[in-house]
Amino acid sequence: MKNYKPKNRLNSQAYIDGILDGDRVILSRAITIIESNLESDKLLAKEIVQSILPKSGKSIRIGITGVPGVGKSTFIEVFGLHLIKQGHKVAILSIDPTSQRSKGSILGDKTRMEQLAVLQDAYIRPSASGDTLGGVSNKTGETMLLCEAAGYDVILIETVGVGQSETAVHGMTDFFLLLMLAGAGDELQGIKKGIMEMADMVVINKADGDNIKMSELARVQYQNALHIFPMSESGWSPVVTTASALKNIGISNVWDEILKFKTLVKDNGYFFKNRNHQQIKWMYNNINDELKQLFYGSKSIKSQLSILEKDIIASKISPVKAAQQILKTFKNSF
Amino acid sequence: MKNYKPKNRLNSQAYIDGILDGDRVILSRAITIIESNLESDKLLAKEIVQSILPKSGKSIRIGITGVPGVGKSTFIEVFGLHLIKQGHKVAILSIDPTSQRSKGSILGDKTRMEQLAVLQDAYIRPSASGDTLGGVSNKTGETMLLCEAAGYDVILIETVGVGQSETAVHGMTDFFLLLMLAGAGDELQGIKKGIMEMADMVVINKADGDNIKMSELARVQYQNALHIFPMSESGWSPVVTTASALKNIGISNVWDEILKFKTLVKDNGYFFKNRNHQQIKWMYNNINDELKQLFYGSKSIKSQLSILEKDIIASKISPVKAAQQILKTFKNSF
Repeated sequence: MKNYKPKNRLNSQAYIDGILDGDRVILSRAITIIESNLESDKLLAKEIVQSILPKSGKSIRIGITGVPGVGKSTFIEVFGLHLIKQGHKVAILSIDPTSQRSKGSILGDKTRMEQLAVLQDAYIRPSASGDTLGGVSNKTGETMLLCEAAGYDVILIETVGVGQSETAVHGMTDFFLLLMLAGAGDELQGIKKGIMEMADMVVINKADGDNIKMSELARVQYQNALHIFPMSESGWSPVVTTASALKNIGISNVWDEILKFKTLVKDNGYFFKNRNHQQIKWMYNNINDELKQLFYGSKSIKSQLSILEKDIIASKISPVKAAQQILKTFKNSF
Repeated sequence: MKNYKPKNRLNSQAYIDGILDGDRVILSRAITIIESNLESDKLLAKEIVQSILPKSGKSIRIGITGVPGVGKSTFIEVFGLHLIKQGHKVAILSIDPTSQRSKGSILGDKTRMEQLAVLQDAYIRPSASGDTLGGVSNKTGETMLLCEAAGYDVILIETVGVGQSETAVHGMTDFFLLLMLAGAGDELQGIKKGIMEMADMVVINKADGDNIKMSELARVQYQNALHIFPMSESGWSPVVTTASALKNIGISNVWDEILKFKTLVKDNGYFFKNRNHQQIKWMYNNINDELKQLFYGSKSIKSQLSILEKDIIASKISPVKAAQQILKTFKNSF
């Protein structure tokens, strides 16, 4: 299966030229290659990414998260339309770690954003993340680079605020936006510990009609809660606002805050410092993932581990000694 | 140097017997062996830990953190005296990751706790953590097991709330206590993001005299802030109280809350579930540390990495490709 080579593939230069020309069909086909697990595609993907690399990076990368029901699709549609009106080209990548793509995804179908989907300046793509956090970083990360090379200058990476993918998305974006609802209770919204404190901005969505008062209350509460945390390295204090995507209220304000953020971090040097840091970290994450794969992928290691786990719980062996023992097995296996 | 064998070492059985007898001098000498980097001591340490393992575990393990100035020493002294009055034997292990032991430590000198230090039922020991987080887990973790085997039924692990050691301490304790001050501003207190949400209890210390009103206000603020987070797996809602270690106010209340916690988590099964999970995780942390050591400890890998970092920042190579390239070098090196 893995050695099967699809017949409809172009040569790498055709993809590269197409992407740099902003050809959406070629872009889509190139992303399919990035997402493919076929060995021949992996080689092709590497060539493509390597060549477009110098043309990537010229966008603002925005992570958007929030649990299902918070109104993410509507928000992104209205926000995207606003950006396009201002002359931007917007790429929207959706990651849904809760379900594999083939099994149907709760995010990622174009029909969710009907107005945006028909525009030339919008590119919407569900991102197949695979099963691992590393998968999110690699596949979505490389897809992002391709979109940038194709001329999209605002990248929105959308994810569901329930899994681990937020950390990966936070690690590849410049600005992290958290959508919430007033009065739903944080437990109900399922926001994981730690996501809140990654946010550069919290938007209380659906702040319209009877909900305005409660949303304003929630805004104050979240603003106070965020002040408990020390200032982040960017020098930016997280902002909490209310908005209604449905009624198109407060949407331009979100973009204004992002522009303020961009000015601040470009002036104080954090923007590129953070980008460089993210790139380097991306390499180290890959190295560490592959090292673990080399170790934990071994069948004999796996079976020895399950025995050691039982022995540890039974106080037969100390965790430190168990680790030393299995590392010896690993070294001798080469 | 590493092959030097100290002449004053006993045989392993002498240490084991001494520890199980509760002999404090032998316990101290055994901990010195745990902390030693000499190869002969490492072997001895392994034998000792392995033998006392079945006798360990019968304590409540409490992590205590807070930045310098919060009154940790006074709190621990008064808290320790309270516990001893109730018939407990208390071991206090101090980790100071901010300075190496030889260079002088801001924690860990016995003179800080004069009343406690003279009592038979208190055992105070600065814990040499070395330079790594893994060092904290291993050396302090094994020291803790020795203290338990020597009959100490309350273990207090003290650390400064500014570094990464909190995560390690949280990973080896049953209950995590955070000391804070009212009105000092969280930025000034230097509490790192994430420490707050590990806390099972926050104690606003120095709540006496003119400070009572402000402390009560801080208590309410922190209690509200903690409610933003969802309930943790233990089923315990973090408690915020005020106390004054200096005036001995609110100290017994802290212990009462810990007992409530203990009852809750022993009843709902979390206590042992968490302990088992911690033990297993301890092994995996060791494995992952040693795997990384195997890789990053190599000189040729190191020099290749620094070249790749530069190439990534210059957009000459993608992070994913860089990782694959260096992994190939690693595999070929065996």
